[in-house]
Amino acid sequence: MLLDPTASGVYPIAPTPFHADGTIDWQSAEMLFAFYAGIGADGVTVLGIMGEAPKLEPDEALRLLKIAVKHMAGKPVIVGASAPGFAAMRSLSREAMEAGAAGVMIAPPNTLRTDDQIAGYYVQAIEAIGADIPVVVQDYPLITNVQMTPGVIRRIVTENPSVVMLKAEDWPGLEKISLLRKWQAEGTLRPLSIMVANGGLFLDFEMERGADGSNTGYAFPEMLIDVVQFSKAGQRDAAHDLFDAHLPLLRYEQQPGVGLAVRKYVMMRRGILASDAQRKPGAGLSAQGKAEVDYLLSRLARTDRRAKL
Amino acid sequence: MLLDPTASGVYPIAPTPFHADGTIDWQSAEMLFAFYAGIGADGVTVLGIMGEAPKLEPDEALRLLKIAVKHMAGKPVIVGASAPGFAAMRSLSREAMEAGAAGVMIAPPNTLRTDDQIAGYYVQAIEAIGADIPVVVQDYPLITNVQMTPGVIRRIVTENPSVVMLKAEDWPGLEKISLLRKWQAEGTLRPLSIMVANGGLFLDFEMERGADGSNTGYAFPEMLIDVVQFSKAGQRDAAHDLFDAHLPLLRYEQQPGVGLAVRKYVMMRRGILASDAQRKPGAGLSAQGKAEVDYLLSRLARTDRRAKL
Amino acid sequence: MLLDPTASGVYPIAPTPFHADGTIDWQSAEMLFAFYAGIGADGVTVLGIMGEAPKLEPDEALRLLKIAVKHMAGKPVIVGASAPGFAAMRSLSREAMEAGAAGVMIAPPNTLRTDDQIAGYYVQAIEAIGADIPVVVQDYPLITNVQMTPGVIRRIVTENPSVVMLKAEDWPGLEKISLLRKWQAEGTLRPLSIMVANGGLFLDFEMERGADGSNTGYAFPEMLIDVVQFSKAGQRDAAHDLFDAHLPLLRYEQQPGVGLAVRKYVMMRRGILASDAQRKPGAGLSAQGKAEVDYLLSRLARTDRRAKL
Amino acid sequence: MLLDPTASGVYPIAPTPFHADGTIDWQSAEMLFAFYAGIGADGVTVLGIMGEAPKLEPDEALRLLKIAVKHMAGKPVIVGASAPGFAAMRSLSREAMEAGAAGVMIAPPNTLRTDDQIAGYYVQAIEAIGADIPVVVQDYPLITNVQMTPGVIRRIVTENPSVVMLKAEDWPGLEKISLLRKWQAEGTLRPLSIMVANGGLFLDFEMERGADGSNTGYAFPEMLIDVVQFSKAGQRDAAHDLFDAHLPLLRYEQQPGVGLAVRKYVMMRRGILASDAQRKPGAGLSAQGKAEVDYLLSRLARTDRRAKL
Repeated sequence: MLLDPTASGVYPIAPTPFHADGTIDWQSAEMLFAFYAGIGADGVTVLGIMGEAPKLEPDEALRLLKIAVKHMAGKPVIVGASAPGFAAMRSLSREAMEAGAAGVMIAPPNTLRTDDQIAGYYVQAIEAIGADIPVVVQDYPLITNVQMTPGVIRRIVTENPSVVMLKAEDWPGLEKISLLRKWQAEGTLRPLSIMVANGGLFLDFEMERGADGSNTGYAFPEMLIDVVQFSKAGQRDAAHDLFDAHLPLLRYEQQPGVGLAVRKYVMMRRGILASDAQRKPGAGLSAQGKAEVDYLLSRLARTDRRAKL
Repeated sequence: MLLDPTASGVYPIAPTPFHADGTIDWQSAEMLFAFYAGIGADGVTVLGIMGEAPKLEPDEALRLLKIAVKHMAGKPVIVGASAPGFAAMRSLSREAMEAGAAGVMIAPPNTLRTDDQIAGYYVQAIEAIGADIPVVVQDYPLITNVQMTPGVIRRIVTENPSVVMLKAEDWPGLEKISLLRKWQAEGTLRPLSIMVANGGLFLDFEMERGADGSNTGYAFPEMLIDVVQFSKAGQRDAAHDLFDAHLPLLRYEQQPGVGLAVRKYVMMRRGILASDAQRKPGAGLSAQGKAEVDYLLSRLARTDRRAKL
Repeated sequence: MLLDPTASGVYPIAPTPFHADGTIDWQSAEMLFAFYAGIGADGVTVLGIMGEAPKLEPDEALRLLKIAVKHMAGKPVIVGASAPGFAAMRSLSREAMEAGAAGVMIAPPNTLRTDDQIAGYYVQAIEAIGADIPVVVQDYPLITNVQMTPGVIRRIVTENPSVVMLKAEDWPGLEKISLLRKWQAEGTLRPLSIMVANGGLFLDFEMERGADGSNTGYAFPEMLIDVVQFSKAGQRDAAHDLFDAHLPLLRYEQQPGVGLAVRKYVMMRRGILASDAQRKPGAGLSAQGKAEVDYLLSRLARTDRRAKL
Repeated sequence: MLLDPTASGVYPIAPTPFHADGTIDWQSAEMLFAFYAGIGADGVTVLGIMGEAPKLEPDEALRLLKIAVKHMAGKPVIVGASAPGFAAMRSLSREAMEAGAAGVMIAPPNTLRTDDQIAGYYVQAIEAIGADIPVVVQDYPLITNVQMTPGVIRRIVTENPSVVMLKAEDWPGLEKISLLRKWQAEGTLRPLSIMVANGGLFLDFEMERGADGSNTGYAFPEMLIDVVQFSKAGQRDAAHDLFDAHLPLLRYEQQPGVGLAVRKYVMMRRGILASDAQRKPGAGLSAQGKAEVDYLLSRLARTDRRAKL
């Protein structure tokens, strides 16, 4: 099953579970993907930035992917394939597809600056991995330091038929989504799935601007699923009510560097992971930070019982 | 009256009001600072990044400052004095102090990288403007691209007796505030006012970490004042309840580039400014963006009647 | 007299002479521009990055310009007009033109990233200063951190009729010059003067690629003039012979930050400036650095008697 | 045989030879390292930035290293081990040492900014690879975008006993070498080999400032060897005479992005490589660029017969 431009819904970005000693916690990995399948996630993304992918050995990465594929049972699993060289990108991509992945996600390296450099990079990367593998373009300037205009995205999509999805996490990004959708309505941009991320901070309005769904790692993906469904059903107030209830915690997750520690801590408290450990190097959460998250969880539990831990 | 390390409370960052044709709207300027004085702001900052300072002529800047000083009636007015050259920094600083400013705010230029460069810059800048002018150090890496460790901040404070305040808008910044306060408790850092900003996105917890107050430009500074007061009074839940009610709008303001347009639009809708115009170059708000803000205001009005417009 | 696309030859970038106490050395300024006129420079550029422009007061800048205009006696004087705000850029530009400047040079601010941002900036800047002022576009990514593709340069030239010259100091930049000249031969880019700089490090080949001349600050502008003339006369070996003799010193000047100190030191040793002082902040030359320059001068003097000091 | 702080002389940075189709040209690899051994190189560095290391598969990297070790016959082979994750860095480093490498070179990732981040990174990296492997710290801000002060270098050396060499390619870097040597003379910095690079552009003076030798990839490493020997023998003029004769070509190599193409082209013309191909992505040399290099070679051949091809 290959990813295509009709993809929609919620594809959580999966963390990689570790034991305190830095080895992978395979039991938690099973638990994690069973959880995603159980809540009705429409797909999942592994080995992204949040998945601590550069710290994994190739065989670890492949094993994690296979666990995801097994649990997701036919639903798309996207694999982060960004790499400094095209050789590594190619071998990871092709092994991943053989292991059952539905497509690969490629972020631009932070050396790219001009429109030509960015567009040229995707042409070369896709030539390297093969044009038969569906590609997700990751637009995340806060992390990659690469700024893609809507025009560059259109150019990438036009020049590379295998690009089927945009992971849209520019900030601000609302007008960009509106413009891409306008171009599609006008027929100057072909169909493309737009999944939003950037921690989910603007999910409420991004859905109203035309996003197909969410592709982020918030520790309560059930909220993402509900908000996407409310929004698609036209229940605007319900979508915002639920989103706003989670916003204080979601905002707390939105701390560069510390965000992953918050997510893993919440997932541990929820019983989805056995430990909140990260493989080195990684930024931990102080005792006061944990107490602040606990306080936010207790406040959230007043309106969303899923936060009652 | 000079700024000193005991400064606390809320010092709103003031926008500069313009007419649609790009000339300064002096009547709105009067209205604006009367508004800040009327709600009980403890001070105000003018000519910051948000104040479109680099777009002003020197005489415009001075006139705006004088209006602020007049309305604030003895409360401190801080002046943004960042400039590419020390000559301009000196002349602006000294003219501002003569006109009644309480101190100047200096952000590091984005060419600085190493600890030595950053610390050295403040020594030279303060030598240029004169050691008699109270200085606010602005720590805003998202905009300045300069990363100051807590150790560098301590070094700047230690080497420059005229530094009396830190405008803390690192992100994440909670642990930094805790560490600076710990150093003060241990006696290895002298007294220093810490005012938080970064759009207010973490004001709730920053106050609990030891901030003295807020120095940001959110379009409802009354909320900032209330949250700071609740927090100082130990009313934790009340502080968070009010903060959380405003968070959806505050988060919407937190869009790089577009944020000022949102603020000016809300202040115009509130009747504090006659127009939401910016002097060129400036990023506007689309019709859909304005409708989204209106929707957020209507939702906020359900819990905070000050948002009923 | 206004700058136009036929401009060619050597336009030295002038330093600003200071006394040791940081005040401007007006006598040396007279001497300096008399020197440029005397050696047959085809024009001169003042108030550029090398001219320590951001450290000057507006009235100092204007007085320096007037001295240049007086001595250059009808030959074009270009004025650096880069500024953080369009208001300052406009007032400086218009005052400069009134004082006799032939055009202004504008470098893009280092926040620009995408092709659209860069092209849009020049449209807005030129709208601000007025379309009647001839403009030099400075393409200097090592300093500005802005990368302009040949396509973006063509777009700027096409969208702004007042752009008449490119100060080409990209690195590597040879192919860029060739491509722009190819486009002109094909008729897809209108006439444009291309003056090369980047310290002169590739002047020998840049001339062969089609540059119109040199616009840099090497301390022996006579060499630049000779190499440009040899090259235009088709005396390839003579051009390279002279260039190569100067290359060890020219290369030594090519040290970021320290370069200006080297240039001022050599110009002082040549008797063109009374002092090698820079206004603060500025990087000096150590005793060993000066001895190295002296050694290079003595070696150069073996083949170019103008270096015999 | 392990690298230690007494290392000196010339360690060329080796390119990786490819066929036109992108596969490794193993025969040229044999030829290349035999060449380095034959001219009397004191060591060699493989898998650096210039060696296109990120484009190699792990088994290719290892095989290349083994060829180098075989030909260098007991002389030190340094291996570039920079990697986005510590897991990959560890496995590459340990396999390399087992295969006969003398030490590894680690460049800081371009996300590091503050002194603490840089120093902390080396502590963690060395913990990851093991404290028994000799480490070369690469200080190359033009490429890594990481600025290390002399103080940070001293801190890294002091905190990590396994650091034995600095690859010094800051620009400007002369004063940095002098200061590090001064600290060693004063006893506040332990012995450390300082090998200079940055394309060799300042080798003449860097040797006089106290460098132990050269660690760069200029296509005539024989010149580097001669200049280092002249300089160590106190033959200042002879060192500069030879260096200056090569400077026009060496300067031409010093073009970011294109430099490797120039080097491979010259080495192909010299018969050291069968092809000047790079593995994708890579920047080629235009026909005019090749003609310019040919011209420079013919000029060089007038004074250095090794350039007669």
